[in-house]
Amino acid sequence: MSKAFEKLQQIDKEIILLEHTSALLQWDQETGMPALAIEERSDQIALVQGIAHDRMTSPEVGELLGQARSEVGLESLEAETSYAGSGSGTNGGEAGDEAGGAEVSKGAALPPENDPRFFSSAFLRVFGRNYEREVKIPRRLVTELAQTTSRAQAAWIDARRADDFSLFQPHLEKIVALTLEKAEALGYPEQPYDALLDEFEPGMRTSQVEEVFADLKTELTPLVKRITESQRVDDSFRGRGYPAAGQREFSLNLLREMGYDFDRGRLDESAHPFTTSLGGNDVRVTTRFHEDDLFSAIFGTIHEGGHGLYELGIAPSYHGSSLGEGTSLGIHESQSRTWENLIGRSLPFWQHHFPGLKRIFPKQLEDIDAEDFGRAVNRVQPSLIRIEADEVTYSLHVILRFELELALVNRNLEVKDLPEAWNDLMEQLLGIRPPSDADGVLQDVHWSMGAIGYFPTYALGNLFGAQFFNRLQQDIPDVDKRIGGGDLLSIRKWQQEHLHRHGAVYTAPELLRRVTGESLNPRYFIDYLEQKFSRLNVL
Amino acid sequence: MSKAFEKLQQIDKEIILLEHTSALLQWDQETGMPALAIEERSDQIALVQGIAHDRMTSPEVGELLGQARSEVGLESLEAETSYAGSGSGTNGGEAGDEAGGAEVSKGAALPPENDPRFFSSAFLRVFGRNYEREVKIPRRLVTELAQTTSRAQAAWIDARRADDFSLFQPHLEKIVALTLEKAEALGYPEQPYDALLDEFEPGMRTSQVEEVFADLKTELTPLVKRITESQRVDDSFRGRGYPAAGQREFSLNLLREMGYDFDRGRLDESAHPFTTSLGGNDVRVTTRFHEDDLFSAIFGTIHEGGHGLYELGIAPSYHGSSLGEGTSLGIHESQSRTWENLIGRSLPFWQHHFPGLKRIFPKQLEDIDAEDFGRAVNRVQPSLIRIEADEVTYSLHVILRFELELALVNRNLEVKDLPEAWNDLMEQLLGIRPPSDADGVLQDVHWSMGAIGYFPTYALGNLFGAQFFNRLQQDIPDVDKRIGGGDLLSIRKWQQEHLHRHGAVYTAPELLRRVTGESLNPRYFIDYLEQKFSRLNVL
Repeated sequence: MSKAFEKLQQIDKEIILLEHTSALLQWDQETGMPALAIEERSDQIALVQGIAHDRMTSPEVGELLGQARSEVGLESLEAETSYAGSGSGTNGGEAGDEAGGAEVSKGAALPPENDPRFFSSAFLRVFGRNYEREVKIPRRLVTELAQTTSRAQAAWIDARRADDFSLFQPHLEKIVALTLEKAEALGYPEQPYDALLDEFEPGMRTSQVEEVFADLKTELTPLVKRITESQRVDDSFRGRGYPAAGQREFSLNLLREMGYDFDRGRLDESAHPFTTSLGGNDVRVTTRFHEDDLFSAIFGTIHEGGHGLYELGIAPSYHGSSLGEGTSLGIHESQSRTWENLIGRSLPFWQHHFPGLKRIFPKQLEDIDAEDFGRAVNRVQPSLIRIEADEVTYSLHVILRFELELALVNRNLEVKDLPEAWNDLMEQLLGIRPPSDADGVLQDVHWSMGAIGYFPTYALGNLFGAQFFNRLQQDIPDVDKRIGGGDLLSIRKWQQEHLHRHGAVYTAPELLRRVTGESLNPRYFIDYLEQKFSRLNVL
Repeated sequence: MSKAFEKLQQIDKEIILLEHTSALLQWDQETGMPALAIEERSDQIALVQGIAHDRMTSPEVGELLGQARSEVGLESLEAETSYAGSGSGTNGGEAGDEAGGAEVSKGAALPPENDPRFFSSAFLRVFGRNYEREVKIPRRLVTELAQTTSRAQAAWIDARRADDFSLFQPHLEKIVALTLEKAEALGYPEQPYDALLDEFEPGMRTSQVEEVFADLKTELTPLVKRITESQRVDDSFRGRGYPAAGQREFSLNLLREMGYDFDRGRLDESAHPFTTSLGGNDVRVTTRFHEDDLFSAIFGTIHEGGHGLYELGIAPSYHGSSLGEGTSLGIHESQSRTWENLIGRSLPFWQHHFPGLKRIFPKQLEDIDAEDFGRAVNRVQPSLIRIEADEVTYSLHVILRFELELALVNRNLEVKDLPEAWNDLMEQLLGIRPPSDADGVLQDVHWSMGAIGYFPTYALGNLFGAQFFNRLQQDIPDVDKRIGGGDLLSIRKWQQEHLHRHGAVYTAPELLRRVTGESLNPRYFIDYLEQKFSRLNVL
């Protein structure tokens, strides 16, 4: 390994340590920080992120990158970093490649895993990409974004509690302005939103999202109608009053069953559930316990557990480096939504897990059996809150946010008009109008965090997830039986082997093609939904 | 304000932000971090502390300090930074000075509070002192100490749990070696231990501690004998089984009664109780709940609450600067031990608070009344564990640690022989021999944190505390009645006015003289003990 490469790895390690430190400052802020600590906390986060930014963007890093790239011979290795023109594969996929040892599926340009350049070229691609993004953003903007968003998160909590958008509006206005500045600083191939999207889903363009989302709208709108017309299911028992302690016990059990390791993680409470990595061996999930909604904690926990398993499954040799994290947010979301929906809302899952739940809440669930429960968790109903939406309407919630973000970024919409625009679009896409901003435009934490360009990855996650799961079903044909028997670990093992362990080594399009033999294909998701609701006799 | 001074304040603020960030990393490690996260956590702490060290020791800081000092005219202002030769005052004290507005008691050299140089000269003294210490310690040593002690703390927990000193020994050997290196780098007036002591109790010398401790031994040894010979008190009810939830409820209540503000703090659990500042508005305390010892959480909580009130009482204008912390550990400990013992173990305190405790544990305390309780918490009995020792034998536990530390530092004792030496000295000072290292040499966290030179401040805290409280009794003659009536806030108000709000503005000897009109006088502590145990009819 060259000196330049080693030095870069050392710098990368320090940046990761600082990022994990910043993640702890943020985790603490969300889970238990005393209220009045917020002012100094925002300064702490801004400082730590600023120092990381300074390390990354020092002129030395650019020089070292150039040296290391030419030493590794990276110029001759062009990874598949974009979805554009990746075409549709025919078959193959990772399972076959891996058995063969070194063959790499067509289109992916990394050397095989046993090539000494495998690690170094992947590292230089990921680190180089991060460097090239960061170096374009001035330090002042980094600090201002960190300070603004830290305060905005506190303001968002207040605004949501008070159901008063005006408390959040000036913060969001500042965030939108700073985000536009960031997009301009980063540059973009077609439009400013590309630069934002690329942070979360590298290689994806706004126009591609528009195309995929147009398809999804076309497919989902009639599907929602067909299902809701014929589905008759009563899920009112979910509101029968479930003490938080019992919900916590069940949530902890579920995570254990999924193979989540509590020597490497924790479960805490926060207003909005999230997963965060504070280290290769410190991946924390949060949930929330609503006594009047049993499903909220259960599916929040399984969802975040899916994110957690991805991070915990990354090969230890990538810990402490830029390769030691999920490769894109869409791929990340594919794991959380696969656990939440494809596994966690399946009938076999509840055939196995319902008795344990009933033991904790015998009175509340007295007249409910596993099948009632399994049907109730699949009730499709246009509703107000994204994170509690069923899996059919869910993507429409995402499309709404994407369209509003795009309008904000393209200056076709002002922040002050956002609540009204939200409500109008909600009515158009889902046929309901939020009675309050708390249940409308104020429901998500993301904008307060400055995460504009993030939402599309949620719907992409549904698509990736269904496509991966289709492959898993080919490799483990009796997966339903296993889920019904309580064997979740064989699913986890498959995911770890094919997806998790790779961390950020493969780009999302590369990983998708290696594992499934094709590029992104929304058909798998639609087929999965149609099949599932046919089996539930509602189609 | 000069440019140099402003620039120094900015650097100081960044260093404080980094120190508070490091404090969060450590707080999390002690309270809830997943076990396997320890390796990376130690790297995170080392990096953040290393960055703070780099900021502090950059050549720019030395130049700025020189400029700012001459601009402020600090050369003409010599603060009382040492106990040596400070002599005994006659009367006066702060109360009088403050009424008069600007007069400063003799020997203290800060300009009066309304002088514009008041803040700047205090700041330059404290910051300059920190700079001059840090600049002497090489960065490599800082990083090595941080990494070593972070790992040592995990090893200490394991060793204590397994009652196996050998698991901790190599870590402690490394810590002692690094600490000696640190002492040599820092330099010292008489002996290496001076350099270590000075970190925690600025201006104090080893020889002075030896002198005071020799006095204390002479006074305490017969006192322990006299009390234990005549005292007949049964405290066995403390082991009757007290569920943690009830102890938590009572602990939270006590903190609220003391005026601890939960919008600026938290109570958590840790193996060893501690208080830590993560911000001017984020001061957290921990305790532990032993179901078989009711007193452990109660007095742990009151003690840490006393530390917490000191930090929370510092004037907001000092937040985010080096002046925004306690002035020395001895003064800090005076506040915690005043709350724990002079207030929290007084009969009037329990006359007011016992009914609330009995409401939580009616069965366990069925046959106990407030006076029984108040006597039981004052049972004097040579025992093994320092933090659970009564207030008469307590200082002997500290003297033991001081003598062992001094022997280690002077190379008269090797780490491998420490358990034996501990047990021998325990027998000599307290007449009992620990049956295990877990209850002997492994009981305290401090050495694993590299805090050698820290223990003496615990006994000094007893002395400072009694001396301050004597003054408080003059200012609030009916303090006992107030405590008995549940009015703790007037004590807190007095402490905040005379002690807490000043932060690190006055040195410990200066503060002592301003408030009490004298320099350190151990007589107050001995008098307090004799008077207390006379009133309890055991002397």
